[in-house]
Amino acid sequence: MEVRYSERAGLFQASAIRNKLFDNPEIITFAAGKPEASLFPLGGIDKALAEVMGGEGKSALQYGPSEGLAGLRELIASQRMAACGVTTTADDIALTSGSQEAIELSGRIFVDEGSAIACENPSYTGAFGALAPYAPRYVPISMDEDGMIMEELEQALRTDPDIRMIYTIPDFQNPTGVSMSVERRRRLAELAAEYRVPVIEDCPYGDLIFEGERRPAVKSFDKEGWVVMLGSFSKTLCPGLRLGWICAGKEILEKYVLAKQGMNLQCGTLDMCLAERYLSLNSLEEHISALQDLYRERRDLMLDCVKRYFPAGVRCTHPHGGFFVWMELDPALDTGALLLKAASEYKVAYIPGRSFFPNEGSSSFIRLSYSCVDLATIEEGMKRLGAFVTEEYKKL
Amino acid sequence: MEVRYSERAGLFQASAIRNKLFDNPEIITFAAGKPEASLFPLGGIDKALAEVMGGEGKSALQYGPSEGLAGLRELIASQRMAACGVTTTADDIALTSGSQEAIELSGRIFVDEGSAIACENPSYTGAFGALAPYAPRYVPISMDEDGMIMEELEQALRTDPDIRMIYTIPDFQNPTGVSMSVERRRRLAELAAEYRVPVIEDCPYGDLIFEGERRPAVKSFDKEGWVVMLGSFSKTLCPGLRLGWICAGKEILEKYVLAKQGMNLQCGTLDMCLAERYLSLNSLEEHISALQDLYRERRDLMLDCVKRYFPAGVRCTHPHGGFFVWMELDPALDTGALLLKAASEYKVAYIPGRSFFPNEGSSSFIRLSYSCVDLATIEEGMKRLGAFVTEEYKKL
Repeated sequence: MEVRYSERAGLFQASAIRNKLFDNPEIITFAAGKPEASLFPLGGIDKALAEVMGGEGKSALQYGPSEGLAGLRELIASQRMAACGVTTTADDIALTSGSQEAIELSGRIFVDEGSAIACENPSYTGAFGALAPYAPRYVPISMDEDGMIMEELEQALRTDPDIRMIYTIPDFQNPTGVSMSVERRRRLAELAAEYRVPVIEDCPYGDLIFEGERRPAVKSFDKEGWVVMLGSFSKTLCPGLRLGWICAGKEILEKYVLAKQGMNLQCGTLDMCLAERYLSLNSLEEHISALQDLYRERRDLMLDCVKRYFPAGVRCTHPHGGFFVWMELDPALDTGALLLKAASEYKVAYIPGRSFFPNEGSSSFIRLSYSCVDLATIEEGMKRLGAFVTEEYKKL
Repeated sequence: MEVRYSERAGLFQASAIRNKLFDNPEIITFAAGKPEASLFPLGGIDKALAEVMGGEGKSALQYGPSEGLAGLRELIASQRMAACGVTTTADDIALTSGSQEAIELSGRIFVDEGSAIACENPSYTGAFGALAPYAPRYVPISMDEDGMIMEELEQALRTDPDIRMIYTIPDFQNPTGVSMSVERRRRLAELAAEYRVPVIEDCPYGDLIFEGERRPAVKSFDKEGWVVMLGSFSKTLCPGLRLGWICAGKEILEKYVLAKQGMNLQCGTLDMCLAERYLSLNSLEEHISALQDLYRERRDLMLDCVKRYFPAGVRCTHPHGGFFVWMELDPALDTGALLLKAASEYKVAYIPGRSFFPNEGSSSFIRLSYSCVDLATIEEGMKRLGAFVTEEYKKL
């Protein structure tokens, strides 16, 4: 059978994160950016479900509006957006099937084939997957410990008139764990307005802060509406409901809603009713506080293990929140080529860093996630990985 | 603010079906193709939910596989696909967020800009919305009372080498209610193989048959894998779970799953767990039988009302299943222009037929749905609509 596919179909690649290799239960994996399932608020969700099915059951199973349920949009505006310093209303919120879908829709409405997207270098590999159908050119912007470097971004905006959007993860970035400074957030909002290029501010991890004060969203500095913020319940409530949202001004938001309607009509109605009821009955802030404690402890242990089990030359980031540590090995090591050996011989897995670079990039990085691995397993897994890396360093 | 959108974004239009005009409770609307909510099997769904949350609760809230849960895919293969004469296994099934999304993914993997899609004329307007990002050219194929005319399709396939897919709704088609004959189904499968063009067989209504024997799916005549069948739980269980599926051979299905993964990772895990449990605990066939009785009665009344309340020159189809009656008024009448008057003066609404024609098309058709309107309201609404149409005929 020789099927004729679209040219676009040739651009789709399996996610480096959703690799079936990681499903082997003998392997300790730091690959998945999954939240810890034992902390899902089952009691609160059960209660919310009972209320939904007892009350509005039939409407919870029926079609619903493409922009999402009004009550849920209100709660997102008043609770989640307020938590990151953005004052807004339900009119500026639309629901998506996770923020993954919102990234896809951003490419759909802003990007033509060959036009460009500026983003941090490295950035979320799943975003490249979501944007692949639109065949963009990437303009990677360097980062330091304060996030995307604004001088480099401005230089790119000045010289490349076909940059159609700036994709950024300012809080506890995936894959580096690095956060953007407040000063740069303000500057990014200014640059977006000055160069009339929308910023897609992807913020799935912002609530999961371990120390210090939460930084206001880039969106909070947005005066004219050039910042589109993407939020998600996947890391705070649970990912199985597939609920994310877009916060944007009326004109841009309407484009997103039309695009979402054509794609799959709407988010799951029961999922939206459940989230609405849960947020009405419970304090998500309290729940988030428990998540912060758990993930902080895991991060602490992982960083401690790096000191104890890894060669002195190995460097890694020190995230103040979120799920990820970004580790740099000796430039001579190819972490992609080494993954199979790590998994088969040392029974430990990670995501090779290469897939997080939109264009060329180093092969000596790995992304480690501590989010869904308990303390004993982090200890054991890091010991294994450290032994593996130590062995590889000896061969250098 | 002058935002620079993609060229593609200019192609998106609000769905003619999801028109907010129809939300006014004073208006009796035959517009929505919604299922009747009072027949959602709340008891069975409650029980299934309780089992899911009591047992696998945490995994039901976690990320899940992009192709969908294995258990649900098995039940779809053994129950739903068997019901339309297709012998298959879970390996050939992948879940999508409603069949709307599966239509979108079909365009994504088969259609390049300007390449062509053959489809019934008229066809589902929502499919045009789903496919809009891929800017296809449409090759509309005429229908008669046995569905798409195969001679005309073959002529098109022979002369237009850039037809990339054939989109069809063989059962109780949207908007006409017409079904394809068994002979033509067999022929369509042959033509697909002969011309090496995939058929996208969209089958959301096939279970809802009112009389006679269910016709085997086009997919049941597929020997080499050129037919991709799209199924849905939206019309048999409920639409709020957003669960549809694709049945296709391994190679094509893998493309769909990769495309779905990039788009939004996966369907809702809780939704999939709930459907799996529901199908395990209950007979969906029995439930479908109750739906058939309800919708048959509504169809009967609507067709009877056409005879009683409408001018003699008005013609309409006689569907043997599904949700829709397709009515043709005098060619001088523009049903799009008349909708506002019908809604504001006669308090009755329908979908103007124009949007169901992919290219040029007549403006004298209307789509009427009896699916979510009770008998008394059908009687009253058809009386109103008949009075309106009678008035308009007098002016001719």
